[in-house]
Amino acid sequence: MDNVAFTVSGDGVIIIDQTLLPNEERSVTLKTKEEMFEAIYSLRVRGAPAIGICAAFCLSALANKTKTDNTAEFLSILTEDADHLNSSRPTAVNLGWALSRMLEAAKKNAGLPVAEIKKLLRRESIDIRNEDIEMCKAISENGLALIKDGDTILTHCNAGPLATSEYGTALGPILLGAERGMKFKVFADETRPLLQGARLTCHELHKAGVDVTLICDNMAASVMKSGLIGACFVGCDRVAANGDTANKIGTLGVAVLAKHFGVPFYVLGPTSTVDLNSKTGGDIKIELRDPDEIKNKFYTKPMAPAGVKCYNPAFDVTDNALITAIVTQKGICRPPYEKSIAALFE
Amino acid sequence: MDNVAFTVSGDGVIIIDQTLLPNEERSVTLKTKEEMFEAIYSLRVRGAPAIGICAAFCLSALANKTKTDNTAEFLSILTEDADHLNSSRPTAVNLGWALSRMLEAAKKNAGLPVAEIKKLLRRESIDIRNEDIEMCKAISENGLALIKDGDTILTHCNAGPLATSEYGTALGPILLGAERGMKFKVFADETRPLLQGARLTCHELHKAGVDVTLICDNMAASVMKSGLIGACFVGCDRVAANGDTANKIGTLGVAVLAKHFGVPFYVLGPTSTVDLNSKTGGDIKIELRDPDEIKNKFYTKPMAPAGVKCYNPAFDVTDNALITAIVTQKGICRPPYEKSIAALFE
Repeated sequence: MDNVAFTVSGDGVIIIDQTLLPNEERSVTLKTKEEMFEAIYSLRVRGAPAIGICAAFCLSALANKTKTDNTAEFLSILTEDADHLNSSRPTAVNLGWALSRMLEAAKKNAGLPVAEIKKLLRRESIDIRNEDIEMCKAISENGLALIKDGDTILTHCNAGPLATSEYGTALGPILLGAERGMKFKVFADETRPLLQGARLTCHELHKAGVDVTLICDNMAASVMKSGLIGACFVGCDRVAANGDTANKIGTLGVAVLAKHFGVPFYVLGPTSTVDLNSKTGGDIKIELRDPDEIKNKFYTKPMAPAGVKCYNPAFDVTDNALITAIVTQKGICRPPYEKSIAALFE
Repeated sequence: MDNVAFTVSGDGVIIIDQTLLPNEERSVTLKTKEEMFEAIYSLRVRGAPAIGICAAFCLSALANKTKTDNTAEFLSILTEDADHLNSSRPTAVNLGWALSRMLEAAKKNAGLPVAEIKKLLRRESIDIRNEDIEMCKAISENGLALIKDGDTILTHCNAGPLATSEYGTALGPILLGAERGMKFKVFADETRPLLQGARLTCHELHKAGVDVTLICDNMAASVMKSGLIGACFVGCDRVAANGDTANKIGTLGVAVLAKHFGVPFYVLGPTSTVDLNSKTGGDIKIELRDPDEIKNKFYTKPMAPAGVKCYNPAFDVTDNALITAIVTQKGICRPPYEKSIAALFE
């Protein structure tokens, strides 16, 4: 299960352009600040952990291109570049988290020559990636303990290898179990408007030989009512201190359905996704995106009349009361989340 | 508010091809049995009441083309044609209801010459249409009593003029209110996979000057959580004797969300949609449609890998416990529905 989504080339960062999947698996090299911003904004790279890793790689690549030997000037440019990348998407905490960590590594070593700081930044970005690989493995192990061979899982959006590194978070237990010969069935919500479930989750699971069935988002209720679903697994973009969880739009609806139909609802993600500065979900800023994504994107013709308004939030916040457990690399948090989440950081 | 969806021409039935909306408002004339079947199967005409009216018009047109003067032979061909049309879609009760009513009108008058029976069938089909216009008006009045000027309504799929005749059912109160100068706001679920909400509901409401905002199906939870929604209005394809309601896939999910967020959930439809032979929703047959509708339809390229399975039910069944009231032309039914629905037919 190799994730080639992030490779550092001589002069940039190589990513798989996820907007072209599942029809084409094409790599692109991001060389300029503008290309990097655009790649994150346009979801060529997406998934909270993946955005963090990618941004760290990008910041290191930009640092390498900086010509100055003056440390103060170097750090000033680095901070500016980090701020620019950080403004590409507002909701996923990992983006800001990875960039802050990179900046901190540079500032902590402000006494060193610029060339040395550049090496440290490269090292730091690779550490962030490698730690994510370890985290995903641990999350996958922890998640796997919650299900049994033969179970049917419903998932929303994509929190697999493409969204992270290696196993992914929400798809991690399924992929890890599949490697061990376990047979899971998965229902994948297509996840409008950008169809990450159809395009990416189905692609990843099908490639791994997992039995996956695609449904429209509005079919999840019918499938859960039928009693087929043993558990819901979703990723997360930002988890508040009380366990309220921002994730891809539609996650809240799945959680409400799971509660209604008595299906366990699990959020999976690394502890870097927890934002202790957000006390509750009310503190999480939700990104609003272009109406064009709903009305026109992917289609041969517009699918709504020209003058009609759209509301297009990229995320929603699932209340902690709807979440059965939050699965991290450090263990499984159960309610009350204020306590179990705080314990992760002790 | 004129519905031109059904006109009888000299040699067939003229419908607006709803699959071309909102980009094109084109009429087609259905002349052969095969064209009529295909138009219903392919949703060129859709919406439970509209299917019933269309099928009645079609059967009358087919009857007019029958050459025989032998009544027994005529009735035999008529029954065959009705059975064929009836097999085009299994879930909406109105299809079978309208065709049975047409057959009954013919058989009751088997003593008359074939030419007279043909005239009676034409009269019966027009009666079905005219009664639907009256019913929709009455449903709209009854529904309008449940909301107040300025309210924001969420609706799923399309139960407007195109799905019925004149005002529609779920959209009826909104359109009737708008005619009287009331200002409603509407959130319209796009309604995957066939996008009736985006293509048809937005088209109809926008044309009528109603403030409508399009959302993806998976955004309904977020909108309801925000407290914006005063009521949900949906149509119905078949209502069981206990109030369990089959309607467009995704309706069940909206109902569960409405319950969770404390929003009244109203089903609107004529009493012809009630099927007393279905004791509960478990007796309602759910149409499964082509996976291609999810993976390919409307798109420039396939949106899921070739080998991936799809589950594509056209309808789901909303449990009576999730329904605040069922609004018919004869009045508003409240729980317990076994009693209130039975009372409609007394």
